[in-house]
Amino acid sequence: MRVVDIIHKKRQGRTHTDEEIQFLVGSYAQGATPDYQMSAWLMAVLWRGLSEGETFALTAAMVASGDTLDLSGLPGLFLDKHSTGGVGDKTTLAVVPILASAGVQMPKMSGRGLGHTGGTLDKLESVGARIGMEPEEIREQVRVVGACLCAQTDRLVPADRKMYALRDATDTVESLPLIAASIMSKKIAGGCPSILLDVKVGGGAFMKSLEDARALAQWMIGIGAAAGRKVAAVLSDMNVPLGYAVGNRVEVREVVRLLQDDPQTETRLRSLVLSLAGAGFLLAGRVSALADGEALASAQIASGAAFEKLREIIAYQGGDTDYLTDDDKPPVARIQWDVTASSGGFVRRLDAEAIGLAAMRLGAGRATKEDPIVPTAGVILRRTVGQPVTPGGVIATLYTDDEAAARAVVPLVSEAFEIGPTALDAHPVIYETIGLHP
Amino acid sequence: MRVVDIIHKKRQGRTHTDEEIQFLVGSYAQGATPDYQMSAWLMAVLWRGLSEGETFALTAAMVASGDTLDLSGLPGLFLDKHSTGGVGDKTTLAVVPILASAGVQMPKMSGRGLGHTGGTLDKLESVGARIGMEPEEIREQVRVVGACLCAQTDRLVPADRKMYALRDATDTVESLPLIAASIMSKKIAGGCPSILLDVKVGGGAFMKSLEDARALAQWMIGIGAAAGRKVAAVLSDMNVPLGYAVGNRVEVREVVRLLQDDPQTETRLRSLVLSLAGAGFLLAGRVSALADGEALASAQIASGAAFEKLREIIAYQGGDTDYLTDDDKPPVARIQWDVTASSGGFVRRLDAEAIGLAAMRLGAGRATKEDPIVPTAGVILRRTVGQPVTPGGVIATLYTDDEAAARAVVPLVSEAFEIGPTALDAHPVIYETIGLHP
Repeated sequence: MRVVDIIHKKRQGRTHTDEEIQFLVGSYAQGATPDYQMSAWLMAVLWRGLSEGETFALTAAMVASGDTLDLSGLPGLFLDKHSTGGVGDKTTLAVVPILASAGVQMPKMSGRGLGHTGGTLDKLESVGARIGMEPEEIREQVRVVGACLCAQTDRLVPADRKMYALRDATDTVESLPLIAASIMSKKIAGGCPSILLDVKVGGGAFMKSLEDARALAQWMIGIGAAAGRKVAAVLSDMNVPLGYAVGNRVEVREVVRLLQDDPQTETRLRSLVLSLAGAGFLLAGRVSALADGEALASAQIASGAAFEKLREIIAYQGGDTDYLTDDDKPPVARIQWDVTASSGGFVRRLDAEAIGLAAMRLGAGRATKEDPIVPTAGVILRRTVGQPVTPGGVIATLYTDDEAAARAVVPLVSEAFEIGPTALDAHPVIYETIGLHP
Repeated sequence: MRVVDIIHKKRQGRTHTDEEIQFLVGSYAQGATPDYQMSAWLMAVLWRGLSEGETFALTAAMVASGDTLDLSGLPGLFLDKHSTGGVGDKTTLAVVPILASAGVQMPKMSGRGLGHTGGTLDKLESVGARIGMEPEEIREQVRVVGACLCAQTDRLVPADRKMYALRDATDTVESLPLIAASIMSKKIAGGCPSILLDVKVGGGAFMKSLEDARALAQWMIGIGAAAGRKVAAVLSDMNVPLGYAVGNRVEVREVVRLLQDDPQTETRLRSLVLSLAGAGFLLAGRVSALADGEALASAQIASGAAFEKLREIIAYQGGDTDYLTDDDKPPVARIQWDVTASSGGFVRRLDAEAIGLAAMRLGAGRATKEDPIVPTAGVILRRTVGQPVTPGGVIATLYTDDEAAARAVVPLVSEAFEIGPTALDAHPVIYETIGLHP
């Protein structure tokens, strides 16, 4: 078998055998097939597409390129979760402790933020938690604490890591089957029998339209089913940042307030967290109806058990739990600048991508993979969609150590708010749920 | 400017600026852009195509990646020639001395054979001629002898060399603008104001249909015009091997007999050589009508001047001119096997590709670039299309040192002949000529 013949077949629009895909991915992961052949094949895939069968085989070959997390011998119900990423998306930090506090174990491997979107790992590091663990440490933490929030281990799906970097450099990212295979290979290698997907839709998300998001969800559900996993997807809105906080430590603090049942919690954030947690309980088999799952999630918050579980996870991972409850624990952001409204009315739109970029420039995110993160940097929105503003009223506060950056992002944040005389109907936070009803 | 953005633009089907193409090709030639980005761009080009302007810019950027041959200060008329390659295609070895013997100077850089097609360089080496020369040596030989038959120099169009190897490994060869840019970049860098193209069509050629061959010719003529060159193309048939000899030293011997005005010379070969030489005289400005050019070519053969020029070129390049006239000069092929017809009638078809592959396996060609060539190996056809055969009559002779190979190719050669009770009209040797009439 020769890779050039495999490229030729795809270039002509023909369908690969499982063996061809295994050969391509296996030889690439081992370094026998060079990057330049893989990138030509990837571009041919963007041109000609992949069938369902090819995508299942691709995912399986990527999983087979490395180790899988072995959960055997651990008692309990297991759930994994993945979000396609957004602005202010801190749901993992809330959903994991809610589920773990009520008997659903979550060995959850996450990613870092890039561009305007945040990542769970950066939020964990902003409170000093360790995120690099060996498989045995993950197993042990799940056994003791019920959940683990960590980075993907090195030996998991090495083919995906290589292919992802290559796709990034060769503009071959935008293919639904390739995106779906990349995400699902990591989740399948993560070992959980049930997988809950949060597919973001809108201006601040990778998927700009509901149709694309639905198609991606269906690809991922199909791949999961082919690998014997139960998969459900929630399609949620990302036209507006989720919650008020966008950054790292500021987002952790927002999660803590949510888990402390603070009535000031932003409505859409709370609603999405309860829905995801409820769906997670159902998917993992902890409850038999979605309403029961949502009620259980509310109860775990009300009782304080969920917050206690978050504190336990952070402490177990060596984090400083003082950060969870103390806004003034040093270091704090050197600069805290208010952004004010130039006119009054209602917030009709709030551009999630612009807010994400603003937070990135303030130090909360990365333009390139090598950029350092400032844990205290970020944006706190004082108003969100549907809320009234007065002329000169504060609509957001910038947190940063970089005065020039603060100065530069003020207009960006200001223009992210579209203010008009009447309120518009906001997008629903959840558009639809796929695959949840068995 | 970032290469990933250039790839993105082509992937979306948009048109590059000249600057983008210069940046891509220049940075690739210098090693700053890696193979994996270039191969992704090349596959995007196969998908989305290149415009005329993009193709002109690509060719110019490839030429600019290295040196060009400087013919200034040399007196005379100059012509370059290129054949897209075929089986038994020895026209360069005949046309160059015909033209050079009548005042048209030809600094002709050629390629090697690969797969079923032969290459001029291998034929030159089969009689001991040196083919690797520095630009100054080429100039000097053209000044003294009037023609030079050699390999492309290292510093000429390095971008093409890199891109060609990459296209071969990534199945991104089959794009007319890329093929045209590759050929024309070398011809433009070769410095001649007039360029004659022999575009082969048919089963033994890269272009299988007349439409594709015509399109390729038009691309090349357009590129040449954009670079200020006079370019004409002859579209000639390659469904049948050209002449009787397929190999290296056997082809040199066939050229010698043609230049010695041997009446046994295969009709189509003689006809194509006279047409190409006539077109060359016209294109270079040596004559003002095609008929005059063809008459001049015939005269140069009849007078012996053309053969004398071939001998002079080979001798100047250190070749052994005894090989030109002595079939029995050792070493000769150890095995000479006749292939016979199983039935009688007329040769209706003769598969050029099959004969080319047979010659390759006998040692005359290369399956991969690293394979050695046996100078004496090849096939001599004893019958060609339109000629009568008797049952058991000899239709071809195999020349090789490899008995196992000879045994293996007998059925291939035998089946390459389609023999029927009546003759079919043969394809014309020349389909059409483009760009010759000013």
